[in-house]
Amino acid sequence: MGNRWEEVERHKEEETQRKAQDQQEARELAKNLGRTVKRLRTEKKVSQEEFAYIVGVHRTYMGLVERGEHNVSVHTARQIAKALGLTLSTLFARVEAEWE
Amino acid sequence: MGNRWEEVERHKEEETQRKAQDQQEARELAKNLGRTVKRLRTEKKVSQEEFAYIVGVHRTYMGLVERGEHNVSVHTARQIAKALGLTLSTLFARVEAEWE
Repeated sequence: MGNRWEEVERHKEEETQRKAQDQQEARELAKNLGRTVKRLRTEKKVSQEEFAYIVGVHRTYMGLVERGEHNVSVHTARQIAKALGLTLSTLFARVEAEWE
Repeated sequence: MGNRWEEVERHKEEETQRKAQDQQEARELAKNLGRTVKRLRTEKKVSQEEFAYIVGVHRTYMGLVERGEHNVSVHTARQIAKALGLTLSTLFARVEAEWE
């Protein structure tokens, strides 16, 4: 019974660690995606408001995305890529190239 | 007043069309992503259950993803890519290459 209990406790601990790492990775990706999107948008000299309109989202939502405070769906990422004249794969290649 | 009213109506109609197109594109992307993921997973001879465990999601959730019934977040797409030994950009390059 003691061993079984320890096993359960170890499993719970591993799950907690895994979730924490998962959240950390989600935040990192959102931050890197947001930074790349902001850089590509400003290179095109498009305001955040105009860009949000082209993508079809609210300006405040685009602000969240660029600050890396939102884990966007792949569909939204694709709409953003299209507004930048990129495909989803080339947008993510840019994000990965800039990743520290 | 008449013209203003027509303008509002036209704007509403455009918005409705835009939303319908947006939903259609989201479904298409989910379908294509799901199909590519399923193909790459089966090529690796990994069951859906094992694969879900590696990615860190529930088996039923992975079923939804492979059937293209869920618009996943970029973070989940990245976890799936990692489980397949790919980066996010190379996974989407595969999806785009298979797109009809």
